[in-house]
Amino acid sequence: MDKTIGIFGGGQLGRMMAQAALPLNIQCTFFEASTDCPSAVLGQVISSKAENGLQDFINSADVFSLEFENTPLADVDVLIKNKDLHPPRQALAIAQHRLSEKALFDELDIPVAPYRAVDSFDSLQQAVAELGLPIVLKTTTGGYDGKGQFVLRSADQIEQAWAELGPAGSLIAESFVTFSREVSIIAVRGQNGDVKTWPLAENHHHNGILSHSIVPAPNSADLQPVAQDYITRLLNHLNYVGVLTLELFVTDNGLYANEMAPRVHNSGHWSIEGAICSQFENHIRAVAGLPLGSTDVVRPTVMINIIGKHPKSEDVLALNGAHLHLYNKTEREGRKIGHITLMPNDSAELTTLCRQLAKILPEPLALTQDMSI
Amino acid sequence: MDKTIGIFGGGQLGRMMAQAALPLNIQCTFFEASTDCPSAVLGQVISSKAENGLQDFINSADVFSLEFENTPLADVDVLIKNKDLHPPRQALAIAQHRLSEKALFDELDIPVAPYRAVDSFDSLQQAVAELGLPIVLKTTTGGYDGKGQFVLRSADQIEQAWAELGPAGSLIAESFVTFSREVSIIAVRGQNGDVKTWPLAENHHHNGILSHSIVPAPNSADLQPVAQDYITRLLNHLNYVGVLTLELFVTDNGLYANEMAPRVHNSGHWSIEGAICSQFENHIRAVAGLPLGSTDVVRPTVMINIIGKHPKSEDVLALNGAHLHLYNKTEREGRKIGHITLMPNDSAELTTLCRQLAKILPEPLALTQDMSI
Repeated sequence: MDKTIGIFGGGQLGRMMAQAALPLNIQCTFFEASTDCPSAVLGQVISSKAENGLQDFINSADVFSLEFENTPLADVDVLIKNKDLHPPRQALAIAQHRLSEKALFDELDIPVAPYRAVDSFDSLQQAVAELGLPIVLKTTTGGYDGKGQFVLRSADQIEQAWAELGPAGSLIAESFVTFSREVSIIAVRGQNGDVKTWPLAENHHHNGILSHSIVPAPNSADLQPVAQDYITRLLNHLNYVGVLTLELFVTDNGLYANEMAPRVHNSGHWSIEGAICSQFENHIRAVAGLPLGSTDVVRPTVMINIIGKHPKSEDVLALNGAHLHLYNKTEREGRKIGHITLMPNDSAELTTLCRQLAKILPEPLALTQDMSI
Repeated sequence: MDKTIGIFGGGQLGRMMAQAALPLNIQCTFFEASTDCPSAVLGQVISSKAENGLQDFINSADVFSLEFENTPLADVDVLIKNKDLHPPRQALAIAQHRLSEKALFDELDIPVAPYRAVDSFDSLQQAVAELGLPIVLKTTTGGYDGKGQFVLRSADQIEQAWAELGPAGSLIAESFVTFSREVSIIAVRGQNGDVKTWPLAENHHHNGILSHSIVPAPNSADLQPVAQDYITRLLNHLNYVGVLTLELFVTDNGLYANEMAPRVHNSGHWSIEGAICSQFENHIRAVAGLPLGSTDVVRPTVMINIIGKHPKSEDVLALNGAHLHLYNKTEREGRKIGHITLMPNDSAELTTLCRQLAKILPEPLALTQDMSI
């Protein structure tokens, strides 16, 4: 192998990174609590629970990256004394702290919903008074897929919200943006400063978890250059290397940034088949210091998550043109255990495929609606 | 993992099969002399030199396939007492014996160049008298990439040809077909008898080794249904399961079969990016008893072999839309150590890319000509 990349985390994102790295003769190692993780089949997993685990991990690779945005900064600080990490520590630190993230968006003139820092019951009451209702109260750190959040719709919920989230210490109250849909933009920046952006994905959720993404997001020609501008500001400001994701709300007043993820993203899984070069390969290329690949779309693509229970593989693969990606994870309610990629010829075929898929998937998600591409 | 497939061989074909198997939660094991082989990074390699190696290999998987057409039939005979092998033993036996192969082509009315069995100096002289010159003299078993062959152009070479190949015992003399180009057809047959065929590849050689393939083969609309018919006859006659390749000559009298390979093939590597479902994924699907994927072409594609020496990865990846596949093999003259896939928008872009590539590749192969798609 030509080079080894050490990845903080060993889940499905690490697995798909390592799959993309292999044809480039790049091997990955992983730092994960359980050595029986989705990435394990593709490279050495060093347990983060083992004595000297971090040092063994640092010794295992030439250059480092991550698939987990809650990678402990303390571990990163030990690493970067000796080895390079892409993306940079600063991007990770900001993405781990919602107030820092909003401050960065403000600094770079990227619109965000009005927000307030909340660190006491009084400041929560004041935030409600200033922002109006509804608001979303979130912990400034942690939380994932809708966890660590409270949607405050009426003033009589203030005490309950504080009781639930107050113990977390530092909170952020955000105005509840009225949006028509949620989109995400994914971009990659190389070590030479080159930036390439994939088309916007339109994302649909079910019970707070991404259900499916449509790419390019329908009717997004006007939004694409704006989103591209925002993410490029972030990438250049942070001197970022690798893939960055920015989640955005489409509102009557244009795009509002929701949050960024300093990593490859579920809404970019479509790119394995749907783009000339996937988010995974381009992330690996960037981290390894190689030229970036084309982010052009091969064909409009829909990515559907498999959540909680596995469908029968033979049912999925019988669908015309369907690609199946399983993560070798055990079934558990609300857990992402795989995804399906469809590349229909037109909206009519997409509708047909989605209706077939809705019958096949044990948890039909949000697929009942008619979609268009 | 849902299932394990044991592969005879552990080279780049096994490596690419295992890469395609992984997203389907299918794991591969390999049976190969050296455990330090291209497939090793993707699954357990059981050394064919180890005591009890064959039995350990048989115990390592649920169902079996191969990436190496010279897989010993003696090993296969032990295997199939207990486990299933796809493709069937008969296909392997025929492909390992050029006279049996020609007889099968004859039986199925698939045109082949006139040939004679040769097992003595006298029979060689008689073959020359009956077939005329030039002829190609080949061993009936073994030989690969031009090895074990003698092109007999004049009668005074008969003694030299016999001196070189006679000791091999059983030979075949084939008329030297005048052909305008060489093409190959690759098809896959599922366990339920479904057959799917990829478009014809036009293959170009350099020093007897495949240099590059263009898919779909230019001006092949009339040839495609004929080739498809021939390979379907073979698949159905053999009750074949998996991927089969048929190499053909394009002559003034139509297509002539050259030889078949009971496996995925170098001229099908383009399909990883260029087809909806690659030869590797469809082979795995067939062996695992899953439905076959679409063999439709995403875009015209050119696959270029990397032979002998590695180019700089950064030079290849800087080419617009280029995909790089390295096999983690050491450099050696005449050895296939990787391939590059190009998916140009038109012939002009292809010409530009090939000229850039000819400067980048340490051994420029047969790329100097202008190609069209």
